Amino acid sequence: MPISAVKESNIDVLVIGAGPAGLMACNALARTGINVRIVDKQPSKVMAGQADGIQPRTIEVLQSYGLAQRLLQEANQVHTAAFYNPNPETRGIELTDRTPGVFANDARYPFEATLHQGAIEDIFLDSMRDLGVEVSRPTVPVSIQVYDNQPQSVDASTFPVRVVLFHGDARNGQTETEIVHAKFVIGADGAHSWVRKACDIEMEGEQTEYIWGVVDMVPETDFPDIRNKCAIHSINGSCGIVPREGDKVRLYIQLGSHGELDDTSGRVAKELMGPNMLLDVARKSMFPYVIDEAEPIEWWTIYRIGQRVAAQFFVKDRIFIAGDACHTHSPKAGQGMDASMNDTHNLAWKLVHVVKGWADLSLLRTYEFERRTYAQDLIIFDKQWAELFSGRPRTDDNQGGVSHEDFLKAFKAFGGFTSGIGICYAESELINTTHQSFTKNLIIGKRLPPQIVVRAADLRPFELQDLLPSDARFKVLVFAGDTIQPSQRMRLTMLAEEMGAGASFLKTYSHGENIFAAFDILVVGSSKGATRHTDFPELFRSHWSKVFVNRGMEELPGCDVYGNFGINPAGAVVIVRPDGYVGTVAPFEMVGDINRYFAAFTRPSTDV
Amino acid sequence: MPISAVKESNIDVLVIGAGPAGLMACNALARTGINVRIVDKQPSKVMAGQADGIQPRTIEVLQSYGLAQRLLQEANQVHTAAFYNPNPETRGIELTDRTPGVFANDARYPFEATLHQGAIEDIFLDSMRDLGVEVSRPTVPVSIQVYDNQPQSVDASTFPVRVVLFHGDARNGQTETEIVHAKFVIGADGAHSWVRKACDIEMEGEQTEYIWGVVDMVPETDFPDIRNKCAIHSINGSCGIVPREGDKVRLYIQLGSHGELDDTSGRVAKELMGPNMLLDVARKSMFPYVIDEAEPIEWWTIYRIGQRVAAQFFVKDRIFIAGDACHTHSPKAGQGMDASMNDTHNLAWKLVHVVKGWADLSLLRTYEFERRTYAQDLIIFDKQWAELFSGRPRTDDNQGGVSHEDFLKAFKAFGGFTSGIGICYAESELINTTHQSFTKNLIIGKRLPPQIVVRAADLRPFELQDLLPSDARFKVLVFAGDTIQPSQRMRLTMLAEEMGAGASFLKTYSHGENIFAAFDILVVGSSKGATRHTDFPELFRSHWSKVFVNRGMEELPGCDVYGNFGINPAGAVVIVRPDGYVGTVAPFEMVGDINRYFAAFTRPSTDV
Repeated sequence: MPISAVKESNIDVLVIGAGPAGLMACNALARTGINVRIVDKQPSKVMAGQADGIQPRTIEVLQSYGLAQRLLQEANQVHTAAFYNPNPETRGIELTDRTPGVFANDARYPFEATLHQGAIEDIFLDSMRDLGVEVSRPTVPVSIQVYDNQPQSVDASTFPVRVVLFHGDARNGQTETEIVHAKFVIGADGAHSWVRKACDIEMEGEQTEYIWGVVDMVPETDFPDIRNKCAIHSINGSCGIVPREGDKVRLYIQLGSHGELDDTSGRVAKELMGPNMLLDVARKSMFPYVIDEAEPIEWWTIYRIGQRVAAQFFVKDRIFIAGDACHTHSPKAGQGMDASMNDTHNLAWKLVHVVKGWADLSLLRTYEFERRTYAQDLIIFDKQWAELFSGRPRTDDNQGGVSHEDFLKAFKAFGGFTSGIGICYAESELINTTHQSFTKNLIIGKRLPPQIVVRAADLRPFELQDLLPSDARFKVLVFAGDTIQPSQRMRLTMLAEEMGAGASFLKTYSHGENIFAAFDILVVGSSKGATRHTDFPELFRSHWSKVFVNRGMEELPGCDVYGNFGINPAGAVVIVRPDGYVGTVAPFEMVGDINRYFAAFTRPSTDV
Repeated sequence: MPISAVKESNIDVLVIGAGPAGLMACNALARTGINVRIVDKQPSKVMAGQADGIQPRTIEVLQSYGLAQRLLQEANQVHTAAFYNPNPETRGIELTDRTPGVFANDARYPFEATLHQGAIEDIFLDSMRDLGVEVSRPTVPVSIQVYDNQPQSVDASTFPVRVVLFHGDARNGQTETEIVHAKFVIGADGAHSWVRKACDIEMEGEQTEYIWGVVDMVPETDFPDIRNKCAIHSINGSCGIVPREGDKVRLYIQLGSHGELDDTSGRVAKELMGPNMLLDVARKSMFPYVIDEAEPIEWWTIYRIGQRVAAQFFVKDRIFIAGDACHTHSPKAGQGMDASMNDTHNLAWKLVHVVKGWADLSLLRTYEFERRTYAQDLIIFDKQWAELFSGRPRTDDNQGGVSHEDFLKAFKAFGGFTSGIGICYAESELINTTHQSFTKNLIIGKRLPPQIVVRAADLRPFELQDLLPSDARFKVLVFAGDTIQPSQRMRLTMLAEEMGAGASFLKTYSHGENIFAAFDILVVGSSKGATRHTDFPELFRSHWSKVFVNRGMEELPGCDVYGNFGINPAGAVVIVRPDGYVGTVAPFEMVGDINRYFAAFTRPSTDV
């Protein structure tokens, strides 16, 4: 190989791995103007197989980046779950129950969207292309080091992480070496993560005895629930069905815990199996229904379920791992791609705030605190779920087996968790629940739920979530109360004065820059009579489109944000984090507590 | 000019004029694979001004072509109308009332979408580009003749309309001549239509005394309803406001009936006016509110309202005029662009059916019957509306003036008409109301209203309108009734047998070709218990996605098609025209009446 001058470059964030976690990170960073690059060792992207389920909360997240519309155009929607169990007499399976596919009270999208991973990646790739960012591939990282280790400062002019990359060149087969100096690196390079290994991060947990096969196919079948998500427990083993885009379905097939393992390594011996053997096992579970392939089988795999979480999610506040690189678990609850994308959805805005010089490096540690806790919960859930799913059904011969009632109870109980809707981040510098009582039903730590509000200037209804896009800004929601009352109007005026003053978080956190770079401010009034946007203090109406009211002229179903969120009639200020989670709440007279909330992670001004 | 060999070409349909009417026609034809071309005499498209209002029914129509999503992303929405009248004491205007912007009970999109005409044209141009069709411009037609006149036949191999076109060439300023031989020509070339004049078609009606000015601007104002549609009656004249995309608004300003007219020609003398003079007039109407331009004025015009309809809409079954070429009226109810697009939405599918060889030429005459009647109704409405709008307000000094109550009553009463939702085509070979009683609330002649139905295979809710795209196919909706009852199941089986037989319209109308080229068939059951798609006769389920049920597992608001449409429990077959209007209905045992419905315009098979 001829040696040429080695290329060197500086970059804010380098993302290693262009799967769902890496793409979510890269797209989120590129949208805010962060200098970001993304590399992948594979010469081309996945075309088939891999993950395929997008849960309700993840659809909301995609919507916050303007990407859900395309997902919904291309994806199948799973609205119904069907449960099959053995008929004691025929020994074949029969329908026990059908239920909604998702149990989550306030999901904006009450279904799972199913689409193969490659198509989901395309949505990100096209969005990134519009922002001028493409994946470099095949590009292999060969070394990574952090040369700077001053945990309390971020000097925007230094690039302490040094990564050596080998770029493959498809034309002449040669490799070009590049040294990248980055402020931050995200390792989103999958279950066998090179970044994780290079940083000596351990995976904690263990392999299970569960071995499953997966087949993507277009079926020819008389099975009546082939377009529903199915959990099938038969006397011949368990099997799951997930319907997909077009006429495709995915089968999950339970295999024995022997035979498919290589005796020496203990790994799954894929060469001993084939898609037809998998399908033969599925056929036995689905008896008396018949299933055949209408087209050649598109993709298949076989694997042993591991349930592991990385011991740490970052190194020296500079290198972060995300997605499969930090958690592996069973695929049957359709959580893998969701957990991965939500990892970097959580991390990306924090990096933006640090790179922009608003927040201290310590803010980044909340990533591990929030996402590792979630990953641990996911493994706990996965163990219970995998056991129920893989366990033998309760029959007359097997009284200790899993009953449909047990299974359904778990399915419903886990609905908040599996949908992503119920996830609640714990108290931290980013989650302060002190004044929870002022917004009784708007839970601090959870994502802001869907809610219709009405714009004052034209009485047009809006989904509140759509007013809080993932643009890396904190959203300040001022619930103004009934400003037709002179006393409330006075209180609001005083609030605006305090929030507009130099000591306010709006000024200190943004270090005196334009406050609308780091914040967006919306105001919502509750007066029953007509409210004009011009009635509100100027700080709260940077544009006529920023003022909202509780209800429009006519009754709209669900349109009562004060009632639904349980807002105290005296009003409240709500801080929604850039990722859509409620961070804290304060009554007007204690808005100083919001100053303290931001002070906890504001970059010291001596750094400026 | 050097003389070169004149180019000659054959084409199914030539569209002259690339405004909203022409683009709607061209896009609709191109989607179905018809060989279509479109030319425009202007060297480039409109960048500002012109029409800007899309009414609720037109949004539905755009959605049926897959174009509404983009419109809704770009357009402003008008949800509220505000009415201002003189305050007898201050002599300035004051708010009298606010009402919803649209009065139409079952609008799927209960608002007006406002966006400048150029952006709306772009939506069509991009869709056409994806289909491989672009506008030739500047291209001027110079002669048009029909050489064939056999009204009862269409020989697909002849091209009886001969049009001579001059193509401008921007590079060398030369002109190239082309002779186009077309099966059909659509003249969508505006109020001064060359096609109309070349065909000697008279405009019937008259000029009015009303002279109006229009200004598109970004205002700086304290007027509280600047983001609502406003009708302002002041003692200094009338004025209208339409809020638009971004911060733009359009002002309609009433001018005196003198002064602005050229004494000799009687035409509006635009050179005597300017945008600032118009704005000065508006300022007087809007007193005591203040309005200024925040940015330089983008576009303005001044015109005298004509209220005219073409005496005929076609010549020799071969040349058709559409849009402003056949009707002119006032712009204040925001109907111009809607009327134009709905003209060619009505015409395009009829041309497809004739070109494909299914329908007789006579089908095309229903275009004039339906759209000229509509245009006449529009003029009648416009006269009443313009009179109310231009009339002086009722004050103490002027007891004969227009009261707010009169105005509001008319605004509400005309809601069905102006929204486009209430339009009902009269009885004709395409509208047969004989069996209306079998679908009491699904009105034959009106567009099929929005309605949620649930797909049997996966209980996913769908908007029924979205299942009936504008793909030029007739939609056959089989309301199967409660097929859990053995007797109803038997009746349905017999219906399927009759509809699948050789004498059925499905076979005779499509001349024995694949029936799904000309028809789509959906079936909707009403059983309360679980219905599987496999329970229905094969003719009615060409794919698993074609079978629907009345309700899903859980109560969905508005989800009861049998109740909402008033479907007879014995079931019914509903024919929805390719443009989304209900054509006819028959009970199972009289499905022969549907054969007769189609026979009225089926092309004689001796022609094949």
